[in-house]
Amino acid sequence: MSPQGSSSLTTNSDCKTFLANRKKEVEEVLWSLLPPPEGMAAQLHKALRYPLEAGGKRIRPILVLTGADFCRGVSGKDVYAGKSWEGVAPDLKQAILTAACAVEMIHTYSLVHDDLPCMDDDDLRRGRPTSHIVFGEALAVLSADALNTLGFQLLACLPERYAIQALRTARELAVACGYPGMVAGQAVDLEYESKPGGEEVLEYIHRHKTAALIRASLLMGAHMVDGSEGDCALLEDVGEKLGLIFQVVDDILDVIGDAQLMGKDAGSDEARGKLTYPALIGLEESKKRVENLSADILARLEGEGDRAQVLLDLTNILVERQA
Amino acid sequence: MSPQGSSSLTTNSDCKTFLANRKKEVEEVLWSLLPPPEGMAAQLHKALRYPLEAGGKRIRPILVLTGADFCRGVSGKDVYAGKSWEGVAPDLKQAILTAACAVEMIHTYSLVHDDLPCMDDDDLRRGRPTSHIVFGEALAVLSADALNTLGFQLLACLPERYAIQALRTARELAVACGYPGMVAGQAVDLEYESKPGGEEVLEYIHRHKTAALIRASLLMGAHMVDGSEGDCALLEDVGEKLGLIFQVVDDILDVIGDAQLMGKDAGSDEARGKLTYPALIGLEESKKRVENLSADILARLEGEGDRAQVLLDLTNILVERQA
Repeated sequence: MSPQGSSSLTTNSDCKTFLANRKKEVEEVLWSLLPPPEGMAAQLHKALRYPLEAGGKRIRPILVLTGADFCRGVSGKDVYAGKSWEGVAPDLKQAILTAACAVEMIHTYSLVHDDLPCMDDDDLRRGRPTSHIVFGEALAVLSADALNTLGFQLLACLPERYAIQALRTARELAVACGYPGMVAGQAVDLEYESKPGGEEVLEYIHRHKTAALIRASLLMGAHMVDGSEGDCALLEDVGEKLGLIFQVVDDILDVIGDAQLMGKDAGSDEARGKLTYPALIGLEESKKRVENLSADILARLEGEGDRAQVLLDLTNILVERQA
Repeated sequence: MSPQGSSSLTTNSDCKTFLANRKKEVEEVLWSLLPPPEGMAAQLHKALRYPLEAGGKRIRPILVLTGADFCRGVSGKDVYAGKSWEGVAPDLKQAILTAACAVEMIHTYSLVHDDLPCMDDDDLRRGRPTSHIVFGEALAVLSADALNTLGFQLLACLPERYAIQALRTARELAVACGYPGMVAGQAVDLEYESKPGGEEVLEYIHRHKTAALIRASLLMGAHMVDGSEGDCALLEDVGEKLGLIFQVVDDILDVIGDAQLMGKDAGSDEARGKLTYPALIGLEESKKRVENLSADILARLEGEGDRAQVLLDLTNILVERQA
């Protein structure tokens, strides 16, 4: 996979600094939104924190912030200079960061349930024992249930003067992660482990299981700052394609990736008989699909000027990622 | 347990008709809010519907409607004559009924997860095989996850002109069912199956596992119609005590109840070593506790006039229930 239109891209090290800064910004708020590991339900609180503390790229929260920046017309230069929040009311800044954390809670709950023995039965995630290994199955199920609810609790607790923005954001998140989105993708994915499926099924799985929440992340940021209809339509399109890139690259890395970088063994999809792009259309065709999707995003962002920079860079990062 | 202040109570048959009517009203909306059992994710949709189709008393949704009626000052006579909705805008009526269905989705997801092999490991509920028996564990977990999310999706999709009401309602529901409420109760309940606990622990479990959602149901109805602070404080108090009555009666029925009426075997709590009031303070003391709670509710509703009738009758029904 070669970098797309690299002449217009920010240097790799600028981007890495940006990602690290945004990750830190998100995580500071994240820890403040979790209950302390004490009291009668201390074990539950520990189990809530554990999978979030495992780290991760925080891609979805960063996309929430990016969606808000894009709709507010903040240039890439200003974002990279840490000036995203200039002119934003402090309580709106806090609300956007909280919405960013909400999507991370939802994403994390889905990982904990996916790892359960009755689902993918994974003992390791990001190089650490999974929740059910550490806390037992019952508490793994319950703590992830609580993370699912917490995502919506955070949005419902936003200041009432942002009630309409909060409601739209919650709607976007719920549709993306509930039965019309992520859960449907996971259900169909599991169903087709034991029976043959074609490209139509695989596309359904990717769009629902992964792309829905990534697309929703950009739109959640947009809703929080009253993004225009046109901007929302653009972000929906770009988000969908970013989500598909993310999942196809995931499938590719599962075949050729570095186990150490990924914190899990390569080849696990194949061993499990999972429906993936490399298995269905081969590695080269899969890489080509990623290139086509990223070219589509480039074309869609053409003419959007400086505010498109971060989205272009993020696309490139997701295309190029090694883990 | 003897009826409390029976002179002021509606006759039993009036109440039964009322409950049946409200149940029908709720269920009509409930079915309209669920996806049809078709398409790529047909199995997931079937698994979503299955535990809701098992029936149940729909106590929580009825409490949502009752909370709204109370705050609007509708007399018991009018409620029983089917005149609850007089003067309510059609889209607000639909919104309140949708909020009532949202709490039933949340209650139902919790039952499906409670029944899992890693939790209570129950094969039967309401006389029918439980979800994981019918659909397998993975789909039971996923479909209940989707019900959890759907509860919030329904509230987030309410008309934007009720954005503030919807947000308050979602907040009430999330706090009641998430880590500050129901899930904490279930986590502590499971923890104390394998170690001794006293009355403080048991009270914590009851307040969180059961009372939180029942209290929230009344308050959700109140928020949807902009209930006053005073009315909300009253409903919070009455709801908490109703919830405790519900759980203590549950514990009592598990000792002395009719297995046929309940759709499950009596004595299952004892067999599992569950912490219950009968086990801790004996059957007679437990019954006395129910009587005291119901007397407290009566006292709290003193002077509220005709609008308190339905709450009084519901209290009596929950005290007297056989299943």
